[in-house]
Order: sequence, then C-alpha cells, then structure tokens
Amino acid sequence: MKLGILHPGAMGSTVGAAASATGHEVYWCTQGRSRETHLRAEASGLRPVTCLQDLADGCDGLISVCPPAAALEQANAVAALGFSGLYVDANAVSPQTAGAVSAVLTAAGADVVDGGIVGPPVREGGSTILYLSGPRAGEVAACFEGSHLEAHVLGPTPGHASALKMAFAAWTKGSSALLLAVRALAQAEGVSDGLLHAWSRFGPELCSRSEATARSTAPKAWRFGGEMREIAATFEAAGLPSDFHRGAAEIYDRMAGFQHGDVDLNKVLDALLNAKR
Amino acid sequence: MKLGILHPGAMGSTVGAAASATGHEVYWCTQGRSRETHLRAEASGLRPVTCLQDLADGCDGLISVCPPAAALEQANAVAALGFSGLYVDANAVSPQTAGAVSAVLTAAGADVVDGGIVGPPVREGGSTILYLSGPRAGEVAACFEGSHLEAHVLGPTPGHASALKMAFAAWTKGSSALLLAVRALAQAEGVSDGLLHAWSRFGPELCSRSEATARSTAPKAWRFGGEMREIAATFEAAGLPSDFHRGAAEIYDRMAGFQHGDVDLNKVLDALLNAKR
Repeated sequence: MKLGILHPGAMGSTVGAAASATGHEVYWCTQGRSRETHLRAEASGLRPVTCLQDLADGCDGLISVCPPAAALEQANAVAALGFSGLYVDANAVSPQTAGAVSAVLTAAGADVVDGGIVGPPVREGGSTILYLSGPRAGEVAACFEGSHLEAHVLGPTPGHASALKMAFAAWTKGSSALLLAVRALAQAEGVSDGLLHAWSRFGPELCSRSEATARSTAPKAWRFGGEMREIAATFEAAGLPSDFHRGAAEIYDRMAGFQHGDVDLNKVLDALLNAKR
Repeated sequence: MKLGILHPGAMGSTVGAAASATGHEVYWCTQGRSRETHLRAEASGLRPVTCLQDLADGCDGLISVCPPAAALEQANAVAALGFSGLYVDANAVSPQTAGAVSAVLTAAGADVVDGGIVGPPVREGGSTILYLSGPRAGEVAACFEGSHLEAHVLGPTPGHASALKMAFAAWTKGSSALLLAVRALAQAEGVSDGLLHAWSRFGPELCSRSEATARSTAPKAWRFGGEMREIAATFEAAGLPSDFHRGAAEIYDRMAGFQHGDVDLNKVLDALLNAKR
C-alpha cells in the first residue's frame, strides 16, 4: 500500500516510519514545510513529493497527523483534489470535528477511518497506540502489523476513536493543567510553602509531579490549547460540563511562549500569573 | 480555655473532642440541631448549652466548622450577639469570604483566627491538620497541643489558612470531579471499554481510582458544590481560570442525591448523564 503522511511532525514522522518499516511505501509532501520537517522526514525514510496533488494522486491512503485546529482545513484541502482513497484522520479532535472531516471526504469519494493516537511519538514497541474505528479500520491496522506502532481497532463506528482520544487526554492534559493552576494559585496567595507542607503529608508525589509536569508540558502547550477546546466541545455535546477544559485551554494558552528553550516550574508560574495583568 | 463548637458535625465533633481531650471545656449549642448531632456531641464529650447567646457568653473561643455556604451567616449570627472573644473560622472558604467573616466579627469586638482543615474527621494522630493564620493563631494551636488534631501555624496573615485549604482542595476534589466527568464522557460516547484499555496500558491505577472516587465522594457531594464555588472565586480573584471548579461544582451538584445509601460508579455515571435531560 502506498501511504501519505500529512505531515511528518514530531508524531507524524514516527507514524510514517512505522508503516515504512513494515514494507509500505510512505510519502510526504514538501510544499511549504520547514527545514526541520525535511530532516525528520528523511531520517524517517519517507519519500518526498512536491505538491499535495501528487500525494493525493499517488497514494492509496493518507494519514492526517496535525494540530487539532488544522484537521478540518487539511481534510478540505485533500477533498478539493478529488482524493478517493482511504483517509485516516488520526488527530486529537472531537467526534463532531471528526464527523465534519468525514463528511467532506466522503462527499469527494474517499473512505474515512477515524483515528486517535495515545502515547508519545513512536520510538519503541509498546509506547504508543493508534486507536481506529470505522468500517475499513482493519485495513489501516494491517499497515502497522509488526511495527513499533500498535494499532487497535475499536469497531466499525466512526467517531469512537476520536471520542476515546478526547476522554483519555481529558484526564492526562486536563489534570496536568489543573495541577499547574493549583501551584499558581498557591503562589499568588503566598502559601506555596503551606501547600508543599500539606502535600508532603497527604500527597507526597504532587510536589515532584507538578515540577515535572511544568517541564514536560510547557514546550507542547502551544498546541494543547486547541486540543482542550476540542475536548470542551466533546463534553458539551455529551451534556457534561465543558468548563474543566476551557480552564485547561486558558492555562496552556498562557504557556504558549515556551515552545523553545529551557523552562522550569517557576517560569511557568510566572507566565500563568503575569498573563492576567 | 472554654471553647464552643459551631457545630458538632462529622468534622466539628472530632475537633471538639480533640480540644476536650487536652483538658479544655468544650461546649455546643443544641438549638435547632438534629438527634444525630446530639448523639455525636455526647459521644465526643461535648457539653450542651441551649442557645447561641449562652454559647457566646460562656466561651472564650468559638470554632466554626460548617458547610462553606453557611460560614458567613454563622459569623453574622455570632457577631449579632456581641461576642468579643476569639473566633476561629475553620471552614473551606475563599480568602475573600474569610475576610468578610473577619470583618463582621472584628466590628463586633472579637478577634479572628483564620483556619483550614486538611484531612478526614480526626480519629487518630497524624490524620488531620488544622492550618491556622492570624495574629493570635498560636493561642488556638495551643488548645490542640498533645491531641490527635495537629495544629500548624502558617503565620500572622489572615486569609493564608483559607487560601491553603482552597489550593489543597482545588487539586483533591477538583481532580476527583474531573476523573468522574471523564468516565461519564466515555460512557456517553460508548467508549468505556476503549478508555479502560488505554488506561490499562498508560495509567493502570485510574480504573480502580475512578471506582473508589465515585464511592467515596458521592455521599459528601451535596456539600462539595459550595466548596467548589468558593475555590472558583479564589481562582478568579487571583486572575486565574475559575472554570475547572465551576465544572467540578456542576459534577458534584449532579451527585447531590447520594447523601444516604449505597452508591457505585454506575449509579454516579447515571446521575451525571441523566442530569442533562
């Protein structure tokens, strides 16, 4: 199967590499992508084509792995080229957004499989799972059989893979944002020492966890805001409170400046508290 | 020192018992209280007086331990009786509410110490800490020296004990509400099995934790809603997102019917999901 990856970012390049490792030809489109992306794609064994039309014409399947806010735009661009193969939307989007992606591509003549990736970029076996749902989910899973990326078919229902990704990230990224917000509150109120005293007695892991969370989330926070808004929309559509993830979006938005460079808890707390002024 | 407890609820009765165990005379006011409260107060060795005026006249210190929404009303009632002793507000309220409590009592001639209780009702040493702040915090702490209730003075600043309690509960009760909301979302979307699959690989404690959280929080949820709103107000006043705890308040409000009786995760999820209809 000839596959295309949209686009070889930190995660997408490793998804492409996993399919490539199992013998599939995997392509990417160089148009408008950065030098960093070029290097990542090359290192991952992906083959370049120059424009999206060539990718759509030459591939049996396309896998979209991009920031949540770009998922629908990406789908529209592919649909406009008349792509009629298999399109996998593996992005962290709400079932509603996944439904909109599916609608435009189905109208163009493509088949769509819903996907959701849980875990870090694929470096070793067992680290990362690609959840899939939809009538042709099994065909996509087969592309990764024997690779480091574990594919898990949830069933034939479109939207299930996205819903699972939303629920999973609602806890991981939602609780991380909450933890940082709590440390910021204690700092603002002048009771950080008191909070650490209470945590040392009633939750000793929370002190180091909050420090580690600041360091690990800050460089990725620029793209977490959009994901939190997709999660908030998912809660709202289910008749559940969307507030948690509106708050989490605000926390990550305030941390968006940490994409590059060293960061620690103190710098994160400064960013969270100074945003208000 | 003669102390009064307002009122001997599940927590307050054990606070009174702790002071009583160290040799202080501890009183409570029977007016308008339930038979359950009578039994708890008697079992805790507290001495009854019939009305609030007698309690205010006869005690050197009063300790308020009541649901957050009642804290200011309680302070107003005591201030109206001309109480001029030492008043400890040990409730889970925002520093702003603590400030309002302090203002009415100070105007009446009383001295106020801010308090915040972390941990369960006092049953054994090391389980529970009463954080205190304010100029006379040390005198209150002395009342519990040698008892099962550990008193910890944060310093002379009014509001610090309340702020610490808010920050501490913001994580514990906020994250519990988030976890239940996530399970409800997965249930609503038909992906509970998928979520448990992902958790079994990436967070194996979350399955049992969500079940235990449902059982442990449901009977107390009726009073958590008010506490979440105090926490939301604290975040807002600090220029931080109040959304997390508005969402948590909504979750606990939907669980308010579980004050009595057996409950498990499925019943909690039903309550969370059916509230929308």
